[in-house]
Order: sequence, then structure tokens, then C-alpha cells
Amino acid sequence: MGKNLTTREEDYSKWYNELVVKADLAENSGVRGCMVIKPYGYAIWEKMQAELDRMFKETGHQNAYFPLFIPKSYFSKEASHVDGFAKECAVVTHYRLKTDEDGGIIVDPEAKLEEELIVRPTSETIIWDTYRKWVQSYRDLPLLINQWANVVRWEMRTRLFLRTSEFLWQEGHTAHETEGEAIQEAQLMMNIYADFVEHFMAVPVIKGTKTESERFAGALETYCIEALMQDGKALQAGTSHFLGQNFAKAFDVKFASKEGKQEYVWATSWGVSTRLMGALVMTHSDDNGLVLPPNLAPIQVVIVPIYRGEEQLEAISQVANELKRELQMQGVSVKYDDRDTFKPGWKFNEYELKGVPLRIAIGPRDLEKRTVELARRDTLTKEIVSKEKVVDRIRELLREMQQSMYTKALDYQKEHITEVNDYDAFKEILKEKGGFISAFWDGTKETEERIKSETKATIRCVPLDAKEEEGTCVYSGKPATKRVLFAKAY
Amino acid sequence: MGKNLTTREEDYSKWYNELVVKADLAENSGVRGCMVIKPYGYAIWEKMQAELDRMFKETGHQNAYFPLFIPKSYFSKEASHVDGFAKECAVVTHYRLKTDEDGGIIVDPEAKLEEELIVRPTSETIIWDTYRKWVQSYRDLPLLINQWANVVRWEMRTRLFLRTSEFLWQEGHTAHETEGEAIQEAQLMMNIYADFVEHFMAVPVIKGTKTESERFAGALETYCIEALMQDGKALQAGTSHFLGQNFAKAFDVKFASKEGKQEYVWATSWGVSTRLMGALVMTHSDDNGLVLPPNLAPIQVVIVPIYRGEEQLEAISQVANELKRELQMQGVSVKYDDRDTFKPGWKFNEYELKGVPLRIAIGPRDLEKRTVELARRDTLTKEIVSKEKVVDRIRELLREMQQSMYTKALDYQKEHITEVNDYDAFKEILKEKGGFISAFWDGTKETEERIKSETKATIRCVPLDAKEEEGTCVYSGKPATKRVLFAKAY
Repeated sequence: MGKNLTTREEDYSKWYNELVVKADLAENSGVRGCMVIKPYGYAIWEKMQAELDRMFKETGHQNAYFPLFIPKSYFSKEASHVDGFAKECAVVTHYRLKTDEDGGIIVDPEAKLEEELIVRPTSETIIWDTYRKWVQSYRDLPLLINQWANVVRWEMRTRLFLRTSEFLWQEGHTAHETEGEAIQEAQLMMNIYADFVEHFMAVPVIKGTKTESERFAGALETYCIEALMQDGKALQAGTSHFLGQNFAKAFDVKFASKEGKQEYVWATSWGVSTRLMGALVMTHSDDNGLVLPPNLAPIQVVIVPIYRGEEQLEAISQVANELKRELQMQGVSVKYDDRDTFKPGWKFNEYELKGVPLRIAIGPRDLEKRTVELARRDTLTKEIVSKEKVVDRIRELLREMQQSMYTKALDYQKEHITEVNDYDAFKEILKEKGGFISAFWDGTKETEERIKSETKATIRCVPLDAKEEEGTCVYSGKPATKRVLFAKAY
Repeated sequence: MGKNLTTREEDYSKWYNELVVKADLAENSGVRGCMVIKPYGYAIWEKMQAELDRMFKETGHQNAYFPLFIPKSYFSKEASHVDGFAKECAVVTHYRLKTDEDGGIIVDPEAKLEEELIVRPTSETIIWDTYRKWVQSYRDLPLLINQWANVVRWEMRTRLFLRTSEFLWQEGHTAHETEGEAIQEAQLMMNIYADFVEHFMAVPVIKGTKTESERFAGALETYCIEALMQDGKALQAGTSHFLGQNFAKAFDVKFASKEGKQEYVWATSWGVSTRLMGALVMTHSDDNGLVLPPNLAPIQVVIVPIYRGEEQLEAISQVANELKRELQMQGVSVKYDDRDTFKPGWKFNEYELKGVPLRIAIGPRDLEKRTVELARRDTLTKEIVSKEKVVDRIRELLREMQQSMYTKALDYQKEHITEVNDYDAFKEILKEKGGFISAFWDGTKETEERIKSETKATIRCVPLDAKEEEGTCVYSGKPATKRVLFAKAY
């Protein structure tokens, strides 16, 4: 099995599609737009889940589970919400199949539901319908709840992980006494997402808020983290919404305040999804395959024996298994691949393709010299290390790789934020260089819309750290007070 | 908030329904037959998941994820399978909503799917359609894959956890070279389920096989574990199926054997679901509320301060927090409930209702005497323990409770397996005593069916340890070789 990957240079999009499949992350299923997440890909997702779940719980959140189906009438209660999702809903209309006269299986027309059910595209409506029962007094607040679930948004053009009709995600839904508390929660979750994405995925992000037209359907403010892929396109990696009292009003969720008044509850919701897998692949990987940050690699170190005959293999296995045990005791996840059905060269290729951070090769000469060969996936460099020092060296390298992958991506991001002051330069940079374009915007929907339709660039965010300054809009020439970030995006 | 639970004596079924809701495990949602699993209930489910997941991985299984939707045509490929599930399928027929002339939201008739999609009631068909691509040679086998997922089986009469239209479960799907290997796998998983249910849930089970009519749709053999509830009804706690080559043939999954021949793959599937939550509640709980085995309790120890005024609370909190830290260091999960919005009596009630295994009360007299009061949930007994000894005593009690809850349930089970040799006694026992009835059966579907329609008792299993002996069928008087277990069941 050769890798035969298309290179990024040749066709970035094709490279991505091939890599996801060949590295055993995911593949398309027989169901339009729905993917199969393969064991290796799922193991990475599980590591993401475990870490995020820990972070959520540390900040007082609890998990729960709400129904997959949402009655159509619930869905319609918040006007902007239904507008945002109506065009991409899978709808359940019947609850039974039957055998027809020819022995074929058909939907039983007599088993039609009185009210159609929507397969959740997001759960605000069903959750707020439940919160009405859970919230009576200020003593019931805050409600800090998260759900790990599958959701469905019917997509016409799909790509593995990045845009699929069904995807996996977590969705947090919180209820608060005051506006200030809810805004703080929405910001906290944006910060937790940024911490996770930067420290575990080694992907630098820019924090900001969305413009009105890019906001979540039903939100007053959407906080986001935006990452930059190697092809210069942006990817929204996570969003956290301040929902005001919109859903509380739509579902009549009130509480008795400390002062004994009936007030509407304040809300947030926030989510990240299997889309993060796409961001991980596209940020770090190269023409040889995946490059995984050690913090998320299901296998951090693989040991491959180089041998001829049973006797050599036995001697090498003794050293390898000892090393494996020592590393495991240090919390390093190790695989010793002694399968004799595959040659070392094939294995090297395979683990490179799968992005295993460190590869150890042990041959007969290594046994003599009491050394091993250590190969590093991100830089593709090799070194010979003495057996005594190898455990320490590996721990050091794993830390170093995690850091240097982040730094490399951060350098790339910084090089690809270009300040631009006129529209010709805007178009030129977008076409030739890509990345984020930092430009003044007059704050109107019209300008945003025109730039989008003329260039396909959207406002990714108004960065949280954007300075207040006087400027003129890159498109309209009207006065503007802040630079925002434009980019083409996934 | 008083408990005001219906007692088991009064109405076991009502007691169960009330308890599940009042103890914050789950509640009905606005969607017919679908439940909301509340944070406290979900925390127990997460502990179950974590332990099962560990056991699966230790035996070489990996997790993956397959689509929620199954095209109708896939579903029809295995004849007995579609027969088994056709009557309870949620069917997606459309992929868009729209606004009608009156401004209402309707299903867009133009967005009709060419082929209807079934919301998975179980995933054999979509998974075996995928395995065809994954299996070429014996080197690709075995495939040992598990999925944590939601599934939907449309139910007309539902009960929280026990029978809901949507439920959460895990489903293992494995592929093997030989029949023997597949049978071994199916038995291994039955044994893992039994280990988990007995050691973590403290629920004793009987291992056996299902009769042909109770088998999974598409299986050649179904292994099961059967538990007994406090009302004398049985509950199927987990099943593991040997599927033969049925799905391999339906989906054309072949492999090149070591000898170079093309052969069909052998299959198993196995699952447990949120139904286990129902078994947990019904096995151990009492008229005061839940009783949770320490191994699955989200909070193992709760500390409640008894005080008047800030000063006393402060002094007690110092002791309580120190104790909490010490217990946490020993891996015990502890909550210190110092909320001043609730009185101690209310809290005692609340934690009894929620089944927290141990409750510590600390009052001013305890401070003086350097003691605490320790109350045990299962026996409702109290003891005074010196502060120095309390950590050790707690660890001891948690172990003891786990064991004694199991023993108590096992005694109950043993007392409720009644050997019966004639049909009058059969009916009498079933009516007066309940539990399992061990009786000879002639092995025919007709007899099984008649007993079921006359008494509502079904054959729960042919126990694995059933002796081969000569006997006569309890119903037909025909010769029989084994005693099987009958019971009314959930």
C-alpha cells in the first residue's frame, strides 16, 4: 500500500479528501451527506471529547440528554430561529413500514404522524421547553447544562468533517438570573474553546464577535474562534451565543427573583463539533499524511522492529516490550507493531500517513550498540538515542512537538493577517495571498453583502482586541471605527 | 419538598414512575415516547458508560460512529431483520420546511426524498454495508467495533428508561474468520455484561440463551442476561447475538482466507441500553427513594452541616472541608452541602431520595466530641464515628454496601426461582409469588406461544447451566430434556 496522496500544491481540496479517507479518519457512507467515522478518527474525537468534558465540568457544567426529535410547532416558536434552520431540516412524517402487495417494503400510509417531527439541527427549542418546568425561582439558577449528541442539518454539498448532514457535537445551554451573568458565561465558553483548540489541537485562533448577519439564528451576540487553514481559508472552530431572553420569552420561562418578581431568564448556548477534526487535519498535515499534536494522538509512539528471522525478532521484542512498559508508566501511549504480515517500510509509511508523533525503529545493530532510532513526524528528522536516555528524550520531544506545532501554525497565521486600506489591494491580497484581511468596515449589512458577493470573502469576526480608531471603510469610503477580519472560509 | 412517594406495596409501577422523576433521573418530554435524561440520571449513565467502555477496550474493541439514517433498501436486505423492526420505524421523508401562504411553517412538498430514510432502530444493515469495503482478506479480521449511539423504536406504550421511543445504547458489531470465533465473541460479551451488571450495578443475573421466537431478528443464537425486579418480574438486561453469515450474505461481505478462498464473514452484535437504569432503580430502591450501589453513585458521600448562625457554620465547614479533601484523595466522590437556603431535614430527605450511599452530619456537639454521624442509605442505620477513624470507616462501608446490596438482591433472586412440575402450580406461583419459574418445556413454539397467551409468562432464557435431564413438559406433558426459566417480564 503506497500513500500516493495528491499534494497540497496540486490540489489542496483533493489532498484533504484523500487524506481523511487514507488515514482512516472517516469515509462517506451510502447515506447522502452522512459520514462513517472510522475507529482511528473516532479515537481522536474521543480524546477531544474527554478534554472538553473535563473543562466543562471543572467550570460547573453537567451533562444531560434531550430528545432527538423536535415537534414542528416548538421549532416555529422563535421566529428568527426557524428561519435559520427551516431550509435544512430532516423531517419524520411516519412511524411504520409495511409490506405491500408485491412483497416490497413501503412506508405505511396509515402510520402518518399527526405532527411532523424535526430531527434536531440544534436543541434550543426542545431544551427551553423543558427548562420551563425546571425553573421556578432564582434558587434554580443558573442551569449549566451540556449535551453530547448527533444533529442533522441537510446539506446539499458535503465534505467529510467540514460539512456533513449528520455530525457529532456538544451543545451547552445555560439559564441565568441576569443579563450580565449570561454574557459572562458566553465569553467564558469562548475562552474555554480557545484554550482547548490552542493547547490540545495546537491550532491558534482569533477570538471575536460575529456581525449581525453571521450571527446564530436567535442570538443577540455570537462569540467565535476563527482558525486559519494552510490554504489561506478561515474555519470557524467554535461559537458561543448570548441569546438574551429570546428563548425564555418564546417558551415562557420565568423565575421568581430574590425580590419576588416574575422575570424572564437569560440564556446562552455554545457548541463545537466534529468539524474540529477537519481543522486539525488542515492546520498541521503535510504531503506525507497526517501530523497529529501529541496531546491528541491516539498512539503517541510506535515501535517498529527491523529484523530477519525469528531469533532477531525475539531479541528485539524483549527490548521493545521493556521500552513500551517504561513509556506506558510515564503515561505515554505506545504501540509495538510486530506483525510479520507487513514489512518495516510499509509500516513506516503507514504510521507517517496516520500522523503518529514519534516512531522508534530497533534493528540488530541497535541491539549491539544499545541504541534506538527515533523519527519525529512533524519535522521528519531522525536521531539515534541511547537506550538509557530514550524515555526522557521521548517525553521531551512530545512536549516540544506540541509547542512547536502551535508556534509554526501561529507564525503562519500572523504572516497571513494583512492590513489593507483600499478595495483593489483587498481583492489582490485575497486572490494572491489569502488569509485574513484586516480592514475598516462601515458597519452596514449592505457593504458586507456586496463584498461577499463580489469576492466571496465574509467578515469572519470583529476581533475582541480590535482598537477603536478612526478610519474609512475599505469598500464604501464611509467613516469606520474598527478593523474587522475578512476571509474566504470553510 | 416532601417525598410523598407512593409505596411499592401500594402500586409498584406508580412507585417506579414517581421515583424516576422525583429523584431527578429522567422525565417525559413533549415528544411522544421520548425522555429527557436529567443531569443526575445522566451522571449515573456516564459512570456505566465509562466502565463498560473500559471493559470493551480491554478486550480489544474500538469505537466508531455510523450514520443515524438507514436507506429503506438497506433495511430490507435481511428478511427476518426487516420483519422484526418494520412496525416500529421512524421514517424521514422530507428534508426541508417552508412558510406557507398564511405564514405557518409546513413541510415543503417539493423536498421529498427519493428514497425514505429510517432512523436507526439498530445498525446492523448500515454497518455491514460499510464492512464490505473494510474487509478483503483474513488480515482485516477480526473487526471488533462498538458504537455509542441513540436509536429509535417507535413504541406505543412507553415507560421512562424501560421502554422509550428513543433510547441511548452501545451496539457492538464484530466480524470474524470462523464460526467458532464469532460464537466465542458473542459469549465473551455476554460474560462482560454479566460482570458489569453484577459488580457495578450489584444486580445478579442469569445467563442463558433465548428461544427461537425470542431471538433477535436476524440472529442464529441470542445470549442474554436476565435480572429479577423487586415485584417479581424479569428484565432482560443485555443481549449478545451470534448472527452467523446472515448479514455477510445480505451485504456480500467476503474475505480471502489464508488458503486463498473467498468466504463469507461470521458476525456478532451485542448491546446494552439506558434500560439498565430502570433495572438499577427497580432492583435496589425502597419507599424512601433511590438506593445506589457505591460503584455507580455520582455522589458517594454527602456532608450536611447542622448549625445555628454563621459562627457555628464556619467551624463546621472547616472540619467538613478537611474531611472532604481527605476523602477525595482516597478517590471517594464527596459533596459538602452548605447551602443556607435549605434546612438539614430537607437535605436529609433529598439525599435519601437520590440514593447517596453515605450521609455525614456534623453539628456543634460533634465538634466538641470530635465525632461525626454517619448514616447508611441501604440499611438506614446510623453510627457515631470519631473524626480520626471516619475516612477508613467510610471506605470500608462503601465496599460493604456494594457487596451487601448484591447479596441481598441475589438472595431475593434465589428465593424467587421456583421449580414447578405441573401447569396448575405454574399458574399459581406466577400469580401469587412471581419470579422465575423453572419448568420443563417440550421445545416447541406452539407450547411457548400458548403459555404466553394464557399466562403472559415468556421463556426468559434457557440457562447456560441447565442440566440435561429427562422430564415432561409442564404444559404439553411431552418429553423434555431441560428446565427453562419462565417469567412475566418488562
